[in-house]
Amino acid sequence: MNERLTSEEITLEGHIIDSGILAQVWGTIMDLGGEFDLEEIRVGKHKAETSFARMKIFADNDEQLHRILNAVQDEGAVLLSRDDVHTASVTQNGVLPDEFYSTTHLPTQVRLGNQWIDVTGTEMDLVIVIDHAQARARMIPMANARVGDQVVVGHDGIRVLPPQRARARELFAFMGSEISSEKPKRLVIEEIAKTMRATRAQGGKILVVAGPAIVHSGAGQYLAQIIRAGYVQVLFGGNAIAAHDVEAALLGTSLGVALHNGQPIEGGHRHHMVAINAIRKAGSLRAAVEQGVLREGVMYECIRHNVETVLAGSIRDDGPLPDVITDTQEAQRKMRAALPGVEMALMISTMLHSIATGNMLPASTKIVAVDINPAVVTKLADRGTFQALGLVTDAELFMRELAEALSV
Amino acid sequence: MNERLTSEEITLEGHIIDSGILAQVWGTIMDLGGEFDLEEIRVGKHKAETSFARMKIFADNDEQLHRILNAVQDEGAVLLSRDDVHTASVTQNGVLPDEFYSTTHLPTQVRLGNQWIDVTGTEMDLVIVIDHAQARARMIPMANARVGDQVVVGHDGIRVLPPQRARARELFAFMGSEISSEKPKRLVIEEIAKTMRATRAQGGKILVVAGPAIVHSGAGQYLAQIIRAGYVQVLFGGNAIAAHDVEAALLGTSLGVALHNGQPIEGGHRHHMVAINAIRKAGSLRAAVEQGVLREGVMYECIRHNVETVLAGSIRDDGPLPDVITDTQEAQRKMRAALPGVEMALMISTMLHSIATGNMLPASTKIVAVDINPAVVTKLADRGTFQALGLVTDAELFMRELAEALSV
Amino acid sequence: MNERLTSEEITLEGHIIDSGILAQVWGTIMDLGGEFDLEEIRVGKHKAETSFARMKIFADNDEQLHRILNAVQDEGAVLLSRDDVHTASVTQNGVLPDEFYSTTHLPTQVRLGNQWIDVTGTEMDLVIVIDHAQARARMIPMANARVGDQVVVGHDGIRVLPPQRARARELFAFMGSEISSEKPKRLVIEEIAKTMRATRAQGGKILVVAGPAIVHSGAGQYLAQIIRAGYVQVLFGGNAIAAHDVEAALLGTSLGVALHNGQPIEGGHRHHMVAINAIRKAGSLRAAVEQGVLREGVMYECIRHNVETVLAGSIRDDGPLPDVITDTQEAQRKMRAALPGVEMALMISTMLHSIATGNMLPASTKIVAVDINPAVVTKLADRGTFQALGLVTDAELFMRELAEALSV
Amino acid sequence: MNERLTSEEITLEGHIIDSGILAQVWGTIMDLGGEFDLEEIRVGKHKAETSFARMKIFADNDEQLHRILNAVQDEGAVLLSRDDVHTASVTQNGVLPDEFYSTTHLPTQVRLGNQWIDVTGTEMDLVIVIDHAQARARMIPMANARVGDQVVVGHDGIRVLPPQRARARELFAFMGSEISSEKPKRLVIEEIAKTMRATRAQGGKILVVAGPAIVHSGAGQYLAQIIRAGYVQVLFGGNAIAAHDVEAALLGTSLGVALHNGQPIEGGHRHHMVAINAIRKAGSLRAAVEQGVLREGVMYECIRHNVETVLAGSIRDDGPLPDVITDTQEAQRKMRAALPGVEMALMISTMLHSIATGNMLPASTKIVAVDINPAVVTKLADRGTFQALGLVTDAELFMRELAEALSV
Repeated sequence: MNERLTSEEITLEGHIIDSGILAQVWGTIMDLGGEFDLEEIRVGKHKAETSFARMKIFADNDEQLHRILNAVQDEGAVLLSRDDVHTASVTQNGVLPDEFYSTTHLPTQVRLGNQWIDVTGTEMDLVIVIDHAQARARMIPMANARVGDQVVVGHDGIRVLPPQRARARELFAFMGSEISSEKPKRLVIEEIAKTMRATRAQGGKILVVAGPAIVHSGAGQYLAQIIRAGYVQVLFGGNAIAAHDVEAALLGTSLGVALHNGQPIEGGHRHHMVAINAIRKAGSLRAAVEQGVLREGVMYECIRHNVETVLAGSIRDDGPLPDVITDTQEAQRKMRAALPGVEMALMISTMLHSIATGNMLPASTKIVAVDINPAVVTKLADRGTFQALGLVTDAELFMRELAEALSV
Repeated sequence: MNERLTSEEITLEGHIIDSGILAQVWGTIMDLGGEFDLEEIRVGKHKAETSFARMKIFADNDEQLHRILNAVQDEGAVLLSRDDVHTASVTQNGVLPDEFYSTTHLPTQVRLGNQWIDVTGTEMDLVIVIDHAQARARMIPMANARVGDQVVVGHDGIRVLPPQRARARELFAFMGSEISSEKPKRLVIEEIAKTMRATRAQGGKILVVAGPAIVHSGAGQYLAQIIRAGYVQVLFGGNAIAAHDVEAALLGTSLGVALHNGQPIEGGHRHHMVAINAIRKAGSLRAAVEQGVLREGVMYECIRHNVETVLAGSIRDDGPLPDVITDTQEAQRKMRAALPGVEMALMISTMLHSIATGNMLPASTKIVAVDINPAVVTKLADRGTFQALGLVTDAELFMRELAEALSV
Repeated sequence: MNERLTSEEITLEGHIIDSGILAQVWGTIMDLGGEFDLEEIRVGKHKAETSFARMKIFADNDEQLHRILNAVQDEGAVLLSRDDVHTASVTQNGVLPDEFYSTTHLPTQVRLGNQWIDVTGTEMDLVIVIDHAQARARMIPMANARVGDQVVVGHDGIRVLPPQRARARELFAFMGSEISSEKPKRLVIEEIAKTMRATRAQGGKILVVAGPAIVHSGAGQYLAQIIRAGYVQVLFGGNAIAAHDVEAALLGTSLGVALHNGQPIEGGHRHHMVAINAIRKAGSLRAAVEQGVLREGVMYECIRHNVETVLAGSIRDDGPLPDVITDTQEAQRKMRAALPGVEMALMISTMLHSIATGNMLPASTKIVAVDINPAVVTKLADRGTFQALGLVTDAELFMRELAEALSV
Repeated sequence: MNERLTSEEITLEGHIIDSGILAQVWGTIMDLGGEFDLEEIRVGKHKAETSFARMKIFADNDEQLHRILNAVQDEGAVLLSRDDVHTASVTQNGVLPDEFYSTTHLPTQVRLGNQWIDVTGTEMDLVIVIDHAQARARMIPMANARVGDQVVVGHDGIRVLPPQRARARELFAFMGSEISSEKPKRLVIEEIAKTMRATRAQGGKILVVAGPAIVHSGAGQYLAQIIRAGYVQVLFGGNAIAAHDVEAALLGTSLGVALHNGQPIEGGHRHHMVAINAIRKAGSLRAAVEQGVLREGVMYECIRHNVETVLAGSIRDDGPLPDVITDTQEAQRKMRAALPGVEMALMISTMLHSIATGNMLPASTKIVAVDINPAVVTKLADRGTFQALGLVTDAELFMRELAEALSV
């Protein structure tokens, strides 16, 4: 018998042994100084059967118990108590009640009127607002909290559904397990192409988060082809990729020279400014396309194929292009608004935009992170899911092989 | 004799041989397909004497000549012709005349009324606006161009003063030549401390561009000490460093635990949100200090010691803190406004803010770039000057040794 | 009931749930196309209790079953069958029988005469030779197999003991879980120092695997201090670290200049050869110490304090020093011979020697891997144990802080 | 007039201004504390004309002068004095006379009987042995010095010919100037293919230094094709690439599985040992080919096409394969012996073998260094020549594109 001062009972259900969830929960309890007694366990006899566990968590004091519950809840534990979710009112715009529950990127449910309700708008580090009248729950960012909003607090009546290892061996489950520059990329790229085709066949949207290295390295043409072939519904980037793309399209010499000898033009920094100036003169990228100023390239294809494009500003921007959303909060709103329906995201050679996007994506979205820097790939692909795949490789060769694998 | 169709005469003056300027100009001419005849050369006989060269550049057509002049001008060449600088009027706000001259980060002069006038506000990729009435010239960003502004165009009457290698062996000249993780850091850090003391003794300002890894790694305390000792006049950062710093200061446990065993707290992502929420509740960092909510840390010291602080927003921000400038153009303006008087900049573990800042700094500002990623250090320190020093090292150990070397 | 053609029963015992072993074994079976029925499970009720599982593995054919058993055996599974270990005779020196069992770096037992016997000389990728007469088993490299040796084959009678997560929160278990450049290094270094002191207090040996960057970066003095204080019993390195160390010791100027201004001497490549030549002239490092030629530095301290030193040759060596073992097989033998008693290994800034050493160390040896390149640290620290700790940091600052933490 | 105590006159000739040699020599003199007077200069008037400079170097004492002469000599300076080269006798095998001249990787001449004689066997960090009777000079490693050998000492009568920037814009000159992961690789790879074809057309040999990642990543097939097409005459590698290649060839499953789904086989570490054991059983790789055991792959093609192959041992080798030269000094000899006639070297994903090889290659050999780690590429490609090209990219995609560009 355990003589710790305070305790709480939790349950875990699903593929909790083979997905490592039970081991993780036990580890967390002990790491945080708690203890546990396993009160009931039923282990699935073969791969199709799920398991169930009920256990009591002991802690020295309420704060410690609180901390443990916080942590194991995000790992899938559910409080045994049958209470509804608790809420508190927002009393100042953009400021949360003290005990707010901070979300994960995992599917989450709250108990309302003794029913488990799905929370919509899954995203990490948000809060849950309850509409008691409609029996609805959605996640919102702190900044959006308005006086009177009912924000979920505490632990009761919250259920997080952790990812469970797929039974069938899938590419994403498999490849994601190890990020390496030594894996056979060609096979992986073929699988990515296959997943892209399947995603489109089911009507899912594909998002590309694109860094300027795509254009720098000469791979803009492949991205343009992929967009033209209908594989991109949403594109996120910054001023740099758009400016470089326009520069390539407008200043024939830049692209021209690159195409026959790969040599940069001296004075290239001026070209960059010339390109931005030309679009500012036209009024916008769309206006430049309509005026016949911009006739090819990544941005051109985005406009021609109605790709939902968000160009978010940063403090290192030159110009910027008139299409760039200079307010970062506004850019976040536009990005969020473009995400519903996105089932797959390719993040290519841009750490800032990729991390920002990754933070907004639920765990269920398939992610492919490509960068030549292993640290960036690790950061992006390490989402605690089986749906993220990291490739340490060259943006140009990757895009070229991908275009080829998609036969575009 | 050279039968190329078009030509122009230029002159070069100064330490053009030992600083490699003459070699560079010749290389540029040939790289761009031109040729040259050296018409006059006087070579300094020993290290104190400067040299002088006059040469004729030949090209096949005007566009090529144009391109060559563009490039060699940025390397210090001056057209022999004695014309004043040419300008064209801005006819649309934020849009430049076609032939605008794009600036470098080097000291630049224009000829007005046959006099060489210094251009103020030196920064890369801007344009020069002439005030003929006052005989003044200053650099402005494209976005600031207003109808009627007289913007410098073409090549005439422009003189760029390239960096010349210091005669006396200086740390910055020396260390900057090679970026390596294998150099004896302690000696370098002592030299940095010495340069900081000298900069302050002469009344120069020191800028710190600070990334969140400083706080993550436990080095916030050293930065706080350095600020307290008066070595920082300007601080640039983002939401993340401020939020982590506040989290460390407010949630005793986080800092507490870190201090005795270095272990992160489970559920840390919530702490981060709690910290931001607390400052939002107070209204601002300054209000939080005044209300006694925030009592230590980097931001606390900045506020107490009137460090001019610019927190610039990015699309990956949580919250953000109320002090963060979410509009990137506005943040750029605030950053520019804080730069006059800055003679030395330490850029620590933040690529985005450091590159943005680097783009705004004239070549003469001493720069120390510290990051554990060699690619970042190379990007930051490679400014074509002898005033930038890159250190591939750990933010925590660097800050600790720097605090020690400054005896703060 | 499962109609697969072939099956085998295995058992698992210990902290198989909280250490993730059961989940891993199930994953392996399914990854390799097999299935399983859990026939018996007993789950420990709290952290002190171990668990037990018995399950039947099904496969389509013998080859598949073979492959599955191979894999799960290395994860701790034991065949239920009660057979003794099987062996086959070596018929050609240095060549193994076909079905040889290839070892892991985990503690391993074989069943001989129905008794579980510990196998000595634990190391990865070796084979087990049985001395039936003496009822002894030891691991040997392929190259050492001699005609008549009884080498273990197949799966029967082999038991691998996988690492089980420590109950008490230990530094190595904890820190090793995440390799990052953003962790508070100072706390980690203090823990390393504490572990070094504890290791020495219990009579364990400490091994340092040392790369030339230690000397390059000016940290040779700290390593020398640590050796002098008795914290190093075994040192592995190559020609480069020894040559650089001798160069620092002999050519005052090199060290002298470095000490007051950190500047490399022009013509340093000659100095390097001069240093090697001086030791070749003396006959050996020891002779150089005895003749008073070598009077300080890392190698000097190793000789004075009877540190067991192995300098292994590589194809990039200049000279080499007479002490360098140019035959790599001979060097491996010397390294292996020096390992008994080593309980802790510090691997600093040398990938080749560290990987070679890592391959020779059993899982139980505590490892600290330090490098500025995260990929190297990951490679070294990723040993599937809870005893390896990776630090992405600077060799110089690390060594200095370590010397300070050890108060040497 | 200069009142320094000691001085010496030197001359410089060639493209000393546009190649930056004059600037470099002046910098070196000043860095080392000396001064100079330029006594004569003739500057080439256009790109085809060379320049000439004669100057007097002043130093405070002989040691400083010595050091300066040492350094500037390696940069191309020639002592004005007309003395023959000086030599001293070796008095102990493998030990050099004190004042030995340490070579660079640049073409070098010595004055014998008032004639400039080419030194053969150009390689860095060797010494020059003079055969006065035959009026011949060659470079040898320290270890090869035999009693009675006449080794060059001091500075007189030595002329180093530094690389001069090519007039015509060449790929290697151009691309080598900047190592970046953002360059358009495809164009660069096409140029490499073109250079390979040209090298073969002129009868030059091509060397590939191959790391195991080539096989790991699935690019072994492309290298095999390139060998089969006759583009490789010499191959350097280690035990690992050969062992992995044999494993791929022998254990159908490994390659088989990889080809259809890219998944590693569990228990792969055993496969590796099985492959090595099979070759040990056959006696050698060649015997395995002859016995029909080894029927495809990189090593198979090397044997079938008489590629001169050197497999050098290292301390991290398993096995090793019987073909591996375990003595590193012997391996260096074999590598050196295979180099005559090599005009181009591709170094792919192996730092150790590439650095070792790079040290043995004269500056005139064209080098292509490919690695995903920018630090490795920088180290390899930074040879102070215009003949080295670094590519930060993926071994697999590089090899595939190269095979395609060569139409093999």
